[in-house]
Amino acid sequence: MAAPKKNGQQTVWFQNPPVILATATIVGPKEGQGPLAQTFDKILDDNYYGEQTWEKAERRMLLEVMQMAMERAGLTPQSFDFMLAGDLLNQIISANFVARDLGIPFLGLYGACSTMFESMTVGAMLIDGGFAEYVLIGSSSHYATAERQYRFPTEQGVQRPLYNTWTVTGAAAMVLARQGQGPRVTHATIGKVIDLGQGDPMDMPAAMAPAAADTIARHLLDTGRKPDYYDLFVTGDLGVYGRELAVKLMQQKGYDLASRYKDCGAIIYSPEQDTHAGGSGCACVAVVTCGYLLQEIKAGRIKRMFGVATGALLSPTSTQQGETIPAIAHGVVIEA
Amino acid sequence: MAAPKKNGQQTVWFQNPPVILATATIVGPKEGQGPLAQTFDKILDDNYYGEQTWEKAERRMLLEVMQMAMERAGLTPQSFDFMLAGDLLNQIISANFVARDLGIPFLGLYGACSTMFESMTVGAMLIDGGFAEYVLIGSSSHYATAERQYRFPTEQGVQRPLYNTWTVTGAAAMVLARQGQGPRVTHATIGKVIDLGQGDPMDMPAAMAPAAADTIARHLLDTGRKPDYYDLFVTGDLGVYGRELAVKLMQQKGYDLASRYKDCGAIIYSPEQDTHAGGSGCACVAVVTCGYLLQEIKAGRIKRMFGVATGALLSPTSTQQGETIPAIAHGVVIEA
Repeated sequence: MAAPKKNGQQTVWFQNPPVILATATIVGPKEGQGPLAQTFDKILDDNYYGEQTWEKAERRMLLEVMQMAMERAGLTPQSFDFMLAGDLLNQIISANFVARDLGIPFLGLYGACSTMFESMTVGAMLIDGGFAEYVLIGSSSHYATAERQYRFPTEQGVQRPLYNTWTVTGAAAMVLARQGQGPRVTHATIGKVIDLGQGDPMDMPAAMAPAAADTIARHLLDTGRKPDYYDLFVTGDLGVYGRELAVKLMQQKGYDLASRYKDCGAIIYSPEQDTHAGGSGCACVAVVTCGYLLQEIKAGRIKRMFGVATGALLSPTSTQQGETIPAIAHGVVIEA
Repeated sequence: MAAPKKNGQQTVWFQNPPVILATATIVGPKEGQGPLAQTFDKILDDNYYGEQTWEKAERRMLLEVMQMAMERAGLTPQSFDFMLAGDLLNQIISANFVARDLGIPFLGLYGACSTMFESMTVGAMLIDGGFAEYVLIGSSSHYATAERQYRFPTEQGVQRPLYNTWTVTGAAAMVLARQGQGPRVTHATIGKVIDLGQGDPMDMPAAMAPAAADTIARHLLDTGRKPDYYDLFVTGDLGVYGRELAVKLMQQKGYDLASRYKDCGAIIYSPEQDTHAGGSGCACVAVVTCGYLLQEIKAGRIKRMFGVATGALLSPTSTQQGETIPAIAHGVVIEA
């Protein structure tokens, strides 16, 4: 019987940390005009990407990043033990249809905007547990598909509140492997669902920040580490105001992260781009991690980071039925 | 480094097969009038279960089976390393809100009606991989929530075609453990997404039967076993016609299963109940496995079974956009 691979209550550690062999990213035109433009592999000219619907455009992005990441790792679909993926669309259709095209044994996951890190977490456990040599991971989102499914059709021109974030159009993929060269996933902290009673679906960061703070504090407690163990803490899509809230919540828990903490949603757009509070969506943490952050790690500018992807686990139906917004945050440690 | 735990392409085997410590089931009134009525733990008097909406009734069923299964295993939420769950509702809100109430580290999964077995598969890998001592697993569906989300509001009285199946109202939960007494999960075969071009969302069994046949044939190939190794093959929710189709597809692949093959959807209702082709939905395979089938195993009437849960990975949006129906089937071996 294998020895338990748990630290404390919610953190698992990998005896043979899985390797991030390759990644790939595609983003939409707006993301391609932002400060991280140089870090993405491909920038679309328009939101349709040659398809007839936004949903098909999203799916095409996800398929292409999966193919690009496999190519970079020198692998074909036949090499993979599992594909783990999910997205924001009802019934995770982007992931399902890409899994159909690739023909890799498929496990669909849903953690809203935390799905990329949820997939990395499960993928790393399947590899370290001895069940897989190679796992293909991916996630996507699209501003227009998310708006019309979760909020209002974009054609309606509803005014967005200033604390609202902008769903990132993009997709990212990652090849996780048992062996090879590259940054490694050494720990994962699996989140609990946290709901402090926030119910405004236009303000998901306020629902998600407590989940992020809970997972970060739990990780530090489980591992016995101090914040300065990490060069960087990263959250997924809290945006400008959500990041401030997370900093305050961490201060209340006795941790000062502010000097070493970035939020992907707060850095993917520039203030002039008028997205209001920043970026969100499954693709937000996915494209920033698979692009900018892993490039920083490979360049030696980040040695150890703890990334936390947050997800708001509501649906339009739950909101209409008067429910508040449950949120979750899954964290992974990536080391050079 | 742990030894690879794979047989062939899609099958994993468990060195220390996880134990099914306890299960629990709740079903709706219609299921409680069917042939398996005696095998369920609780039968609802009405589809609202004292709640204001069907969605809240579904969620309450899922919460209660989770609590019931934990109690039977003599455990509290604090004992569990992970909760793995999913359901048919958009953004898997039944599972999300139950995870909020229970406070167990949560991984949301989506495999449509295959979700229960997808969760068992992942849960068994996490236990055998050394990452968990106890995993709580559950899934649910509700006729009225599924109809209005996927098809038409029930109030509209749209006539259902005779080949249509009826979404099971119910929920089931399972406690998987590293050690203890009970039936064991010894293998899992993870499905690929199969799509032979069927596009009628009223006829999901026709889309799912090829996925079931693919996973069964792959399992036999991967393990080198003959069909007579098992006392029983079970599929999830193909219903009466889908079962016939699966038998034919297996014959084409050179296997004769007919004498040792049941479909949960074909046995959960009696023909007089006028469900047309039988039962479907996440709860179908979940309540029949956690009720009837595990009772048969414990009574010694089944020693080894290979269960395959099928899922149709479409959404109303994908159908409206002219797509066919991708399907998946995940299989688990349960031994006395």
